[in-house]
Formats: sequence, structure tokens, C-alpha cells
Amino acid sequence: MRVSIAQHNPVRRLLGRPLRLGVVGGGSGSFIGPVHRSAAVLDQRFELVAGVLSSRVERAAEQGAAAGLAADRSYGSLAQMLSGEAERADGIEAVAVMTPNDRHFPDCSAALDAGLPVLCDKPMALSVDQARALAAQVRRTQQVFCVSFNYSGYAMVRQARAMVADGVLGPLRIVLAEYFQGGMAAAVEREVLTDKLRWKLDAARSGPSLVMGDIGSHAHHLASFVAGARVERVAADIGAVVPQRKVDDYAALLWRFDNGARGSCVVSQAAAGAENNLVLRVFGERGMLEWQHRECNYLRHAPLGEAVRMLGRGDAKLHPAAQRVTRIARGHPEGFREAFATLYADFAEAICGRRGADVDPLAGDYPGVEAGLHSALFIDAALRSSRAGGGWTDCEQA
Amino acid sequence: MRVSIAQHNPVRRLLGRPLRLGVVGGGSGSFIGPVHRSAAVLDQRFELVAGVLSSRVERAAEQGAAAGLAADRSYGSLAQMLSGEAERADGIEAVAVMTPNDRHFPDCSAALDAGLPVLCDKPMALSVDQARALAAQVRRTQQVFCVSFNYSGYAMVRQARAMVADGVLGPLRIVLAEYFQGGMAAAVEREVLTDKLRWKLDAARSGPSLVMGDIGSHAHHLASFVAGARVERVAADIGAVVPQRKVDDYAALLWRFDNGARGSCVVSQAAAGAENNLVLRVFGERGMLEWQHRECNYLRHAPLGEAVRMLGRGDAKLHPAAQRVTRIARGHPEGFREAFATLYADFAEAICGRRGADVDPLAGDYPGVEAGLHSALFIDAALRSSRAGGGWTDCEQA
Amino acid sequence: MRVSIAQHNPVRRLLGRPLRLGVVGGGSGSFIGPVHRSAAVLDQRFELVAGVLSSRVERAAEQGAAAGLAADRSYGSLAQMLSGEAERADGIEAVAVMTPNDRHFPDCSAALDAGLPVLCDKPMALSVDQARALAAQVRRTQQVFCVSFNYSGYAMVRQARAMVADGVLGPLRIVLAEYFQGGMAAAVEREVLTDKLRWKLDAARSGPSLVMGDIGSHAHHLASFVAGARVERVAADIGAVVPQRKVDDYAALLWRFDNGARGSCVVSQAAAGAENNLVLRVFGERGMLEWQHRECNYLRHAPLGEAVRMLGRGDAKLHPAAQRVTRIARGHPEGFREAFATLYADFAEAICGRRGADVDPLAGDYPGVEAGLHSALFIDAALRSSRAGGGWTDCEQA
Amino acid sequence: MRVSIAQHNPVRRLLGRPLRLGVVGGGSGSFIGPVHRSAAVLDQRFELVAGVLSSRVERAAEQGAAAGLAADRSYGSLAQMLSGEAERADGIEAVAVMTPNDRHFPDCSAALDAGLPVLCDKPMALSVDQARALAAQVRRTQQVFCVSFNYSGYAMVRQARAMVADGVLGPLRIVLAEYFQGGMAAAVEREVLTDKLRWKLDAARSGPSLVMGDIGSHAHHLASFVAGARVERVAADIGAVVPQRKVDDYAALLWRFDNGARGSCVVSQAAAGAENNLVLRVFGERGMLEWQHRECNYLRHAPLGEAVRMLGRGDAKLHPAAQRVTRIARGHPEGFREAFATLYADFAEAICGRRGADVDPLAGDYPGVEAGLHSALFIDAALRSSRAGGGWTDCEQA
Repeated sequence: MRVSIAQHNPVRRLLGRPLRLGVVGGGSGSFIGPVHRSAAVLDQRFELVAGVLSSRVERAAEQGAAAGLAADRSYGSLAQMLSGEAERADGIEAVAVMTPNDRHFPDCSAALDAGLPVLCDKPMALSVDQARALAAQVRRTQQVFCVSFNYSGYAMVRQARAMVADGVLGPLRIVLAEYFQGGMAAAVEREVLTDKLRWKLDAARSGPSLVMGDIGSHAHHLASFVAGARVERVAADIGAVVPQRKVDDYAALLWRFDNGARGSCVVSQAAAGAENNLVLRVFGERGMLEWQHRECNYLRHAPLGEAVRMLGRGDAKLHPAAQRVTRIARGHPEGFREAFATLYADFAEAICGRRGADVDPLAGDYPGVEAGLHSALFIDAALRSSRAGGGWTDCEQA
Repeated sequence: MRVSIAQHNPVRRLLGRPLRLGVVGGGSGSFIGPVHRSAAVLDQRFELVAGVLSSRVERAAEQGAAAGLAADRSYGSLAQMLSGEAERADGIEAVAVMTPNDRHFPDCSAALDAGLPVLCDKPMALSVDQARALAAQVRRTQQVFCVSFNYSGYAMVRQARAMVADGVLGPLRIVLAEYFQGGMAAAVEREVLTDKLRWKLDAARSGPSLVMGDIGSHAHHLASFVAGARVERVAADIGAVVPQRKVDDYAALLWRFDNGARGSCVVSQAAAGAENNLVLRVFGERGMLEWQHRECNYLRHAPLGEAVRMLGRGDAKLHPAAQRVTRIARGHPEGFREAFATLYADFAEAICGRRGADVDPLAGDYPGVEAGLHSALFIDAALRSSRAGGGWTDCEQA
Repeated sequence: MRVSIAQHNPVRRLLGRPLRLGVVGGGSGSFIGPVHRSAAVLDQRFELVAGVLSSRVERAAEQGAAAGLAADRSYGSLAQMLSGEAERADGIEAVAVMTPNDRHFPDCSAALDAGLPVLCDKPMALSVDQARALAAQVRRTQQVFCVSFNYSGYAMVRQARAMVADGVLGPLRIVLAEYFQGGMAAAVEREVLTDKLRWKLDAARSGPSLVMGDIGSHAHHLASFVAGARVERVAADIGAVVPQRKVDDYAALLWRFDNGARGSCVVSQAAAGAENNLVLRVFGERGMLEWQHRECNYLRHAPLGEAVRMLGRGDAKLHPAAQRVTRIARGHPEGFREAFATLYADFAEAICGRRGADVDPLAGDYPGVEAGLHSALFIDAALRSSRAGGGWTDCEQA
Repeated sequence: MRVSIAQHNPVRRLLGRPLRLGVVGGGSGSFIGPVHRSAAVLDQRFELVAGVLSSRVERAAEQGAAAGLAADRSYGSLAQMLSGEAERADGIEAVAVMTPNDRHFPDCSAALDAGLPVLCDKPMALSVDQARALAAQVRRTQQVFCVSFNYSGYAMVRQARAMVADGVLGPLRIVLAEYFQGGMAAAVEREVLTDKLRWKLDAARSGPSLVMGDIGSHAHHLASFVAGARVERVAADIGAVVPQRKVDDYAALLWRFDNGARGSCVVSQAAAGAENNLVLRVFGERGMLEWQHRECNYLRHAPLGEAVRMLGRGDAKLHPAAQRVTRIARGHPEGFREAFATLYADFAEAICGRRGADVDPLAGDYPGVEAGLHSALFIDAALRSSRAGGGWTDCEQA
């Protein structure tokens, strides 16, 4: 068995302590903020020491205290955090960005400029231009950069990627992704908006296509990650299924990958009754794999002409890439929090690697700035296709 | 509880005996032939008395005997059967056509000309022209005509259709269909071909798109049947995923219905590891329904903001349309055979209705020649879209 | 692939026609009557030609006509059917008994005395004495005798039995059976009773333990059939969970088999919300098998230390015993009717075997009079244990 | 919606910081140690500041460092930790005991004597006498005491308990529990033993019945917790199914509860192919509930005569007791870690309550010393029954 990240902690080995993390965003009312903070510390590679939990100073202090921050390390802006922490001997060593979408680009850019590694909530950018600029900055600064395509952190997703890479399915033929949520099925615009909904429903802040940024990006990354391939062309139909809605809540598209596979991707945030179930299926010459978020601890493998196999997280014969990110034994469900934590563990190990530590090569398989750029190129092509009436449209080169 | 077709037999009530059925096609090696013959007699509305089970005379006799036909009613051609039976006082009263696809049109046409009702295996025709001609002939002859879109015979599919029609989901927004089979995932062209594969792999006999005729037609009909709507426009990608294959084995398309719903339809006969699982999901303003062939006795209903419900065939509160086609109590699985039999039962009751019997109005909900025509229009539009590079393409008017 | 019973019909080969069957019982209001009649003819080994569908003459005629019997072969009593048919050149060649439980013994005995093979609905007898007497009579008359433990007719149950016999699991350790129904969860005694409920709620007619005769017998036979072993000892708790009920509706017991396996069996007809789901699990040294009626086309095989396999009816590599009783291809659900039909097919082939036909040895694996006797011995021991306060109680020797 | 423990932290509100926790046990090779430590801090109610991670001093230091303890707070024995911490102004305020089973009683007793609240891994004691003594000590010292029956921490288990208590099912009739693991299916005795296996296979250390202490105790507590009832009588069969094994690995028993319900409980650690799936089903007059560990985020509710409902963690209409322990939204799987953390959160809130804080009454629903005592009484009665040949045996009064 491969040693699990729960048993082996290269950060502690290198430093004798966890890395010091600062966060920006994710305060009151945020869904993803508490997930980030909990996931960051789960594997004891980070401790949370500083943050900007609101852009309103008073509220930032209150929220920071609730999150366990010392009073003097709860800041009112990212600029203040970066300068304040830079003056401390025990200042932050990494930044996690979980602000509204329109702030991702400037916040990441500022943190990189401050010489810090960055983990950015997806979508990384609101446009191809922003994404290209960030990719260039990461290459220039040589900093570690991670985008929170967190579904790639599930053990059974890593297993799927490894099996495809090892040729278990043979050449891929069909790749199908779907992601349905019901949270915006009702006409939420008519309700009293939470902070979160307010910025999401404002295209200037959430980006050119809400549904593509929010969940289409996840479906795309998961498919690319497992297929080990990039989307070359798309034919898309994107819009709103809820009457009078001004942001996109539905996207359906056909795609072609650079390894020859084709298929479809359908996502909606207005699918009444849906259960946040991201589903990926890949069919190759010799069989298929299916992974569903709803049954995240399992992976269905149907080899051509053989009985279907249900692989379970913790099975003795899984690929080392899956074993490494398994913390609790078979039959003891792990979930969303642990998958998210995997990205933080990988991020931490990459930082240690830059500092000279000997790091598990499997730790390098996290979504970096290139993944963020490809996501932006994909969304851009899909929107161009849809606006042009749905014909095949090439993704720009990275 | 609605009386089930297992308890109430209007054919016997009218005639004191079952209707006399003749079949053409479905002999040795056929998958669907034995299903048709078994389904036709299951509800005691038909007895099988004549047939053309092979185009080779000797073999037709042997196959007819195995199917229980009297030696003098096993014919070598449809023409012979029609004329032979016409001379008998106890001659056939209906014809079921299950020949290779290219024979459907001429065989149906001949049977109608002979003044007989027809149940035709899908696809009803190889072209829009054929389909239009058949529809015209049916209107002219006033005969009962049924196309074997057999998935519409499942009790829980009828339940789904009734729930949508009753507005349980509110206006429909998204309709998703898929149908994956693995039977052609291997390069079967290199093997010794069975009779069935030989004509399927010959586009002149199987039609302009094998995958669309074989299974795309089922996915389309099921979606239309449950949604209670017609496809207006499609954007399609159709072809072969198995290298060197000369017939289509893969189709993915986006669609728009005349009730405003949109979504996708993906089908393949070359999906290695797939299990013949036809799946339909419809999302409306107030919830969703999901039906899977693999769990054909159940229907998943997820109302917005409520716990998911798993409706089961035989449940006391189902719609009469579902109760009527339930033969065995809850918890006792029924399957493919019974669903197929439902079409025959409906077909028989429609024939009785034409003869003046008092027939359950719910029996009229079977796929007729209009369904066959819409199927042809849909396939035609999908092929035109795919050939033109995938943009939105209108279905012709019926 | 083994030839399926759908392709190969030794009855027709031997006789050129199906065997002629007479039924007793199963008229109006019966659940199981229509299942028997439909199952008997499904594989074209029997045709239904005579019957006693009610003990009231007028009603018998009406019911017989509805079942398709000629007027002169619808009888008012078994004695009349046996004598009437004996006088015909085309008289019945086998009898199926589906009367209320207290009539099974005398009806089977009379049919055997008339020189006819018998298929008897379970429970075969109301007491050990009756069961022993019937077993002796069968041995004496050398007639084919089958008890309708119909769950043994499912393809995946035959697969399970074959895998255990082949040692795939190694020595068995644990055998668990359960069968829960909800049909008697309400206080049905207070309602207007149907014919069926009337005799069931009368212990003189339904037997010493309703729940054991109705469903405990199925759970026990299924377990013995798959385990290839007999129950030696039981420790039981049997009674009624519905207040004021005078017949048993609940039984829970621990058991030990003659191959060393142990486990539990729990059944109830008063399990509100249950879905007629008979479930069997067997654990051996090297893995386990699970079969559920609700997913009757599948068999779960979990080998020790390996990924779980989901075997599906129709899979290419199944045991010949499963292939033989598979009529429709993988992915096309078969159900209760087909499993029941398998017993009739086996019964027919056994009759042909007695007449000298060359019969598939796998056809001999149906539940005979010995299975009925062991069922009676098991029920008897369970009742003795429960009445004595639950300690271990030996089953009598057969 | 009830405020979740993820949003509302009464510990921080009271103290402005988490409670200081010391642990004893759970070092290298322990499965449950890391789970305890991670769960304790998950909801920011505890911070881990001291520990005894091995009884060997050097190893304790090394393990302590790996767990993030300061060097001077990694102790070689519980006595040292209790005295060392007592001298500090910032000493521990609670102790979690996760030593081998035979140490639970003395360790808990010592911590209580030191005036500290205790969370003890199950089984709380090796005998009824020990359990009674501990219960008396808890009553005397008035300390908060919690036993890690962690399955009661799942949101959907709390939902089930609340629904039963609210009478949704009506009076309970049948309660079924099962728990199968495969970890001891092989003859592990012949392998090189890990520390954990060594003490488990030594009955002097693991207790009078390994299987009952390890997993029978979980099945029993879960059943009692949801049923809101105590087991009065049992009839049991306990032993080893693996040849030559000297500790119990199998237990099957029938039980009767003090609310009139009856049923069965079957558990084994030698069930080859099993997946650590704890399953509970309760049937009442008006329906049933089923919870499975494998699908821990869901609860199946089948009301009599209605469609089955699948309740999901996060559903808007769940009981406040379930909402309170839901941290992440519907469709985002939570697992074993979070359920365990719930007990720590409840434990922390109880401690705050003793210190005068205003605590959610729902927080009081954790398993205390009485639950531990009832567990010991249950195991004792089951062993007495099994040894006496399986008849009904009363549990002693608490």
C-alpha cells in the first residue's frame, strides 16, 4: 500500500510545523469559505493565521474571530494583509483566494506579486485575457499556483485518471459529463438576495456565463482530468431556462477532445429536484468508467464482455494515486471536505518541493494555472458557439 | 384501482376468442422475433396462427413449426400469406411486421392494402418519403397501425407521461435522453456475421443511420412520449467511433421541443461496457422525473424542495394509465416482455374499437403512424445537421 | 453459450406439440393463478386445456372461459376433471395445483393417483405427516413432482447456486435470508375480506403458521438451494406483530446448516412499507454473494480482497445453468413471470425425460417433493422452537 | 433552518477559544486515533494540546510531534499527563480515551478522578461490573461523559431518531440491525500481527467477546438510539466462523425491546467481501425507515401505502436535530469524520453547559455513560444466552 497523506506529512518533516496560510474572502454567508478553511488544515499541512473575511473592517474582525484568527491578523483588505504579514517574522507563506469571481484575478495577481504561492477558487478568471495574464505571471514568478477544481481531489477520480492513463480502457471514444443543481430552479431573483446571490446574479461580478463559471467549469475540468485530454472544439447551447433570468443557468454542448474522443456536457443550476450530482462517464475501446459525486467513494468499471466491477475507496489493489489520498479505511465514507483537503495537501507539498523537500511525484497532479487557462478557453469557445447559433467552434490555443 | 389489462379482456368479450395474428420476419437468429410472438399472446388478445419466418421456403416451414404454426400456415412470403389467409374463414385479422428495416415500408404497405391492421417494428421507414407515404396510406385505409416503440409500454413510463400531462412538474425546461449499448463496441465487422448483423451493417438495408434507426429512434420517441411534445430543432454530431466502421454507431445531439424544453440526446451502440440502458430525465419548473430501463419497475420523482420519491409499479396511488398496464403486484418484477405486450394489447383493443367494442380510452395511447412519421422527420433533421457541421436544423413539418 | 430454453424445446421435439395441462384453483381474485397459467405456456412446453377455476360450478365455467378454456373442459371439481379428462384421447398430461393451502395435499394426492405428474403451489403440505405421505406417494408412483419454489427459477439464483457448488466462495460460513412484505401490515381483519384473505386468515386452511407457509418457506428454500445444504437446527421467534391478529405474520430465527454454515432468517408479512423483497446473502471463506428480488437480473459477487462484481443476466461468462434459463439478452429485464416459467419448463422436460426424451441434465435442478418435505420439516422445527421459548431445536430427519 | 454547529460555536462564545483536549492512546498503527484527533478539532470546539500516544516514552514523543503536540506535552503515561497538565494554567480541560479496550475502564476512572470530563472510545468497559462502577463514578463526580457510539452522530441517524420519537412510524414492531466487516475473514492469526491485531486477538485485552465489543456494540446502540427503546431480552448465537479462531468473530441474535418491538441483530468481522456496512431498519405500524452506513447521507422512508421517500442530508424540511449537525449543503457528501466530530461537538457543548453557557438542547442527545452501561448489559445477556444454548435471556436492570 502507498503511504497515505494522513500518515506522511512532508511539511512537518521539512519545517517541524504547518505552513502559515492567509485567506481572502469566504466570510459570513459564504458556502465555500468554511470548506476552504476546514480543508486547508485537515491534513495538518497548513494552519490558518490571517485573513480578510469581509471587505467591511468591523465585520472582518468579527468573522475573523469566529474563524479563530488573532485580532491583529484579521485584515480589512488583501493589500493590508499582504503588507501586514510581510512585516512579521511569522508571516503567511501562502494565500487562498475565495472572493467573488471578479476579484479572483486581481487578488491572485496581488498575492503573486507579493511573492506568495496562491490557491484560487474557480473560476480563475472572467476572461481569456485575464487567464492568459495570470498564466504568464505564474510562469514569470515561478510560484506554486492551484485552482480549486476540487473534484479532482477525490480518491476515486484519481483512480479513474490513472486507469485511463494506464490504458485500461484502451483509446477513449466517448466522454460524457453532467452537473445538475436545483438551487436556482426557483425564481430566486424575486427573493431578498443574500450577499452570495447578489454577486452571482450580477454578470459583471460573476462573469460572462454564471452556469459555465460555477459548474460547467467543474464538469469540463473533471472530464479533461480523467480523460487526460483537452477539448478542441465545442458546439453549444447556453442560456437561461428560468423565464426573465438575466444570467445563464443552463448549458448543453457537444465536444471533441484532442485524443479523438467525443461526447456531451450538460449542466444546469436550474434543474428542479437535482442534487448537485456531478457525473462523469468515459467509454473506451475496452470498457467504461463511471464516477458520480453522489457515490464519491466508488468507481464503476465495466470492462467489455466482463462483469461490472465496483471499485471502492480503500480497496487493496487501487492505484497508488488513489491510495495516497485515502485517509480512512474502506467502508468509512469520506466526502467533499476530504477531496477539497487533497488539493491543499498537494498545494502544500508543491510549496515544500520548491523549498527543496523530497516530495511524492503523485502530489504534483493538482490543477494548476494551465488548468485554469484551459477552463477559460473552453468557456470562451462555448459562449462563442452558442451566440453564433451552435455550430462547431474551436477553442483558442493556450 | 383501475382494472388491469390482465383482468379485463375486451377482445374476448367481443369475439369470445383472441384475434388471429400473422407475422412476417423474426425467424432464426432474430432477437426481436421471439419477443414479438411471446408478447402478442401474453394478454390473450391475439393467437399466432400464421407466419413468414424466413424468405427461404424450407426454413420458413421449419421455423414456423418451432413457433407452433400449423404446417399449412407457414408461408414463404408475405404475399402468399396475405392471399392464403384471405381465402380462409379463420384467416388472420392483423399482421405484425418484423423484417429487416428496408422491408418495413413495403411489408406494411402490402398488409394495409390487404385490409389488415398492422403492427410494425421500428423504424417504420427508411426515409421521410416512405414515412409520409405510409402515414397517408393509413389515413386513407383507416386501418389501425402501431409502431413498436415498446418503451412506451412500461407502466412507469405511462405514469411519467401522465404526471407531465397533469402538470406535476410544471412547464418542462430540460429533457435528457440517452441510450448506450455495447453490442457493437468490438469490431464485429471482422467476425463471421450473423444474418442479423449482415443486414444491419449494410446501410442499404438498415437505413441511412444505423444508430439512429436502432436506438436513437427509441430515445426520441420515449422523450416525446413523456414530454408530450415534439422536437422542433436539432444540432447533431453523428458518426462512427469504431475505426473503419461504415455505418453510424454514435449520435449526440442537442434538441429543442415545441413546448420550450431543451436538452440533449446521446446514443451509441459502440459503448463498451454499457448495458442497454435507456434513460430519460425531464426537469420542469417544480421538479423532475427519471426513468431507467435497468430499473424499469420504478420512477424517480424529485419535487423541488421535497424529499425524493421512488414510485413503484403497483403502488396504490399511481395514475390509472399505469395501473391499467400493471399485471403483477408491487414487488414482483415485470420486464421487457410485458412492456412489449402492452403495445399488442393496445393494438388489439384499437382493432376491437374499430369493430364497435367499448374500449378503455387509455388504450389509445400507443405509438401510431404519426409517431413513426415524427421519428423519421427527427432522424432526417439530425442527419442533415450533422452533415452540415452541427448547427441548429429544423425538423420538417409532419 | 448454452442454448436457452427459449431456443430449444425438447417437448415439441418429442411430441410435435406442447403437453396438455389442467389446473385446479387460481380463479377470480387469485394473485398466483394468472401467474401460473401465463408461466405454464410461456416457453411453449404446455398448453392449458382444462381447469377447475372455482369450486362453484357456474363460476368455474365463467372463469374458465375467461382463461380461454373450452366450455366442456371447465370443471367443477378436481375429481370431475380427472375422470373427464381420462376419457379423452386428448386428455391432460399434467396437473398444476394452486388451491388454498389445505387443499394442496389431497389435490396432489388425487392427481398422482390418477397417474399424472403434478406441479404444486407451495406450501406442499400443512404438516410433516402430510409431507411425508406425499413424498412416499411420489416415490411409489414414480411421477414427476414439482413444488413452486419459484425464486429458484431466476437465472441469477441458478448462477449463485452454481458458483457455490463450484467452490467459488470456499466453504460457506454465514447464510442470511429475509423476506418482508407489507400486505398485512394494516389490520386487514377489520376490512371486507377477499376470498384469498378469508382462507389465509383461517389457520385451519392456511396452515399452522401463515407467515412460514407463505414466505418463510420461500426464504428457506432459496437459502438451501443456493447453499446446497440443509437446515439442521433452528432457534425461532414466531408470532404476530399486528395486535389481535390470530395468525402468524412475523418469524425470526437463527439457523445452522449441515455444511457448517450459520446465520439468520427473518420474514414478515406485516412489515409496513416493505416491498416484497426476498434477499439472500451467503458468505464463504473467499467472498460473498447477494441476490435481491428487487434487482432480480443481477447478482452481487464480492470476492475477498477484490473489487465487487455485479454479474448481470445475459453476461457472456455466466454458468450454463444461468444461460439455459435466460430468454432475452442482457439489459432487457426479465421478471417474476419468467422465473415461474422456468419451473414449468423444467417440469415439462422432466416429464419428457420419463418418456424417453434426451433432456438437458441442468433441467433436473427444480424443487421436487424432497424440497417440499424439507420445507415442512423446517417449519415444524421452527414452530416447536418458538413455542418452547426459542432454544435450538433439531429438524426431523427426512 | 436550524443553525448548524458549523455556524454557531458556543465554546468560542463562552471562552473566546476552543477547549483544551488531552488524548490517551491512538498512536502509530491505530485506525481510530487519527479519526478522534481530526474529529475533535473539526468544529473548532477543541484544540489538541496534550497526549499519551504510546506507552513507550520515546515513541510517545515522536508520535506526539507527528500529531502536532508540543514536546513538553507529549507524555509517557496518563498519570503523567494528568499531573503535568494539572500544574499548568493552560492545562487540559477534557480527556479522550482511545487505548486498547482493557484500558478504557481504568483510564476513564483516572481522568474522572482528576476532575476532567471524558470521551471514551467504545466499548466503555469489559464487564458489567466495570460499567456499573463507571456509571456510579460519573454520577458521583457529575462530570460530562461520552461514549464514542459515533454512528449516532450522523445527521440522518438523528433524523431517524427524531422521526421515530415524533411517531411518524407509529408504534414500532420490528427492529433489524446488521454490521458486516471482512477484515478478519482471512486467518489473520497466522500473519505477522500489528499492535492493533495483537491486543484484539487477546481476549484478556479486547474483552469477553471481540465481535460484540467491536461492532455488536455499535449495532446495538444504533438500534436503541433510533428506536428510543432498550433491549430487554436476547436469544443469541455467538462464536467464531473462522476455524481455530480463539475470539468471537460472529454473533446473531434475536431481541425484544421494552417498547414491544422485536427483530434480529447479526454482526461479523469475518464476513469475506463485506464492506463495513452498518445497516438499521425499523418497521412501525405506519411505515419503515432504513439507514445504511454506505449511503450515510440518505435515509429511506417508506410510509405504508405511499411512494418511498429518500430523504437527503441538507433537505430543507428535515428535523432540527438533523439540520443542527449538517455542515455542508445537500449533495456535498459528508462522512465518517463529520459524524465522529458531532460527538465531540456535543461533548464540548455539554462541558460549556456545565460551565453555565446557554446550550442547544439538541446538543444533549449524545451517548453518555448510561448508553455505555446498557451496552455492557446487552453484551452480557447475549453471551449468557449463547453459552446456555440460545434461549431467551433477560438483560440485567441498569
